[in-house]
Amino acid sequence: MKKSLGAKTLVFPTPVWVIGTYDRRGKPNAMTVAWGSICCSTPPCVGISLRKATYTYGCLMERKAFTVNVPSETYLKQADYFGTYSGREENKFDATGLTPVKGDHVDAPYIQEFPLILECKLIHDHEIGLHTHFVGEIMDVKADEAVLGENGNPDIEKVKPVLYSPENRVYHGVGRFIGKAYTIGRK
Amino acid sequence: MKKSLGAKTLVFPTPVWVIGTYDRRGKPNAMTVAWGSICCSTPPCVGISLRKATYTYGCLMERKAFTVNVPSETYLKQADYFGTYSGREENKFDATGLTPVKGDHVDAPYIQEFPLILECKLIHDHEIGLHTHFVGEIMDVKADEAVLGENGNPDIEKVKPVLYSPENRVYHGVGRFIGKAYTIGRK
Repeated sequence: MKKSLGAKTLVFPTPVWVIGTYDRRGKPNAMTVAWGSICCSTPPCVGISLRKATYTYGCLMERKAFTVNVPSETYLKQADYFGTYSGREENKFDATGLTPVKGDHVDAPYIQEFPLILECKLIHDHEIGLHTHFVGEIMDVKADEAVLGENGNPDIEKVKPVLYSPENRVYHGVGRFIGKAYTIGRK
Repeated sequence: MKKSLGAKTLVFPTPVWVIGTYDRRGKPNAMTVAWGSICCSTPPCVGISLRKATYTYGCLMERKAFTVNVPSETYLKQADYFGTYSGREENKFDATGLTPVKGDHVDAPYIQEFPLILECKLIHDHEIGLHTHFVGEIMDVKADEAVLGENGNPDIEKVKPVLYSPENRVYHGVGRFIGKAYTIGRK
């Protein structure tokens, strides 16, 4: 029997991604989001949703560029900090000691210490309600050599990204390999 | 040192969600997506991206409603099947033996056997490129009693959702609890 829980943002999994931007004076900022996903294959695009009240919202509108930085479990404490405080009051890079690096392709900083990075150019925004949905074209994916697998792509077991549970407000890691896609369901 | 991998849809984690729709004749269909996320808190909304070529695209445009069905690991084989074949050629519910149930709030079927369901009303669509981004307002969340935690919300460790790795095309389960959000990063 299914229990009805009402209209809420409760689904699994949601990511833990840190969005990198510059403000109008060039100060790098970082903010954590769980509302984000790939949203187009060609051109490759990622979508993230932000409230207007966030400092990153203004930075993104100004510079039309952002990075998606995937923290490993090792950097979860810093990612949680990035999602708890505002760049209006904090210099978050100074506070965490992490290193902002100017993107090669876009006017936004990425986080040197994080294993997987997407450089994104803003191509669309749409105000849904409390959140505005931003679509960024992925100009480049960058990864630490140490997290690459045998096929040359980042391996999720090496990147060790984090999952966020909305409503419950807890973090989980990635579990075991359970199958190959487009394979285990074939007739 | 970061290695540049080019412009591609490579990020972690991405979800494994099955989208439920009716076609114009009322046949229930199911299609698996990895391009999806919550995209607004108020009103609560979820976004999914679909190619125009999919059968679900037409169903969704016609009925303006869909469900998001979160498979547990137990149903990964069926979810992979739903993502491998088209509803144009297949009656996917007949083929899998899963049970389509008419939503209480929207004109779309959900999958009885899956532990976590979102009933969604289409409120916006935007063609990005190969994929169109659909925003659905979440009218209700439904969950099996068996996956509820102590606080009455679904527990990710009981739901056992699946993660998809783009490019590598593999599935992983959820790992261990690693921290409380808005807590471990506090100063």
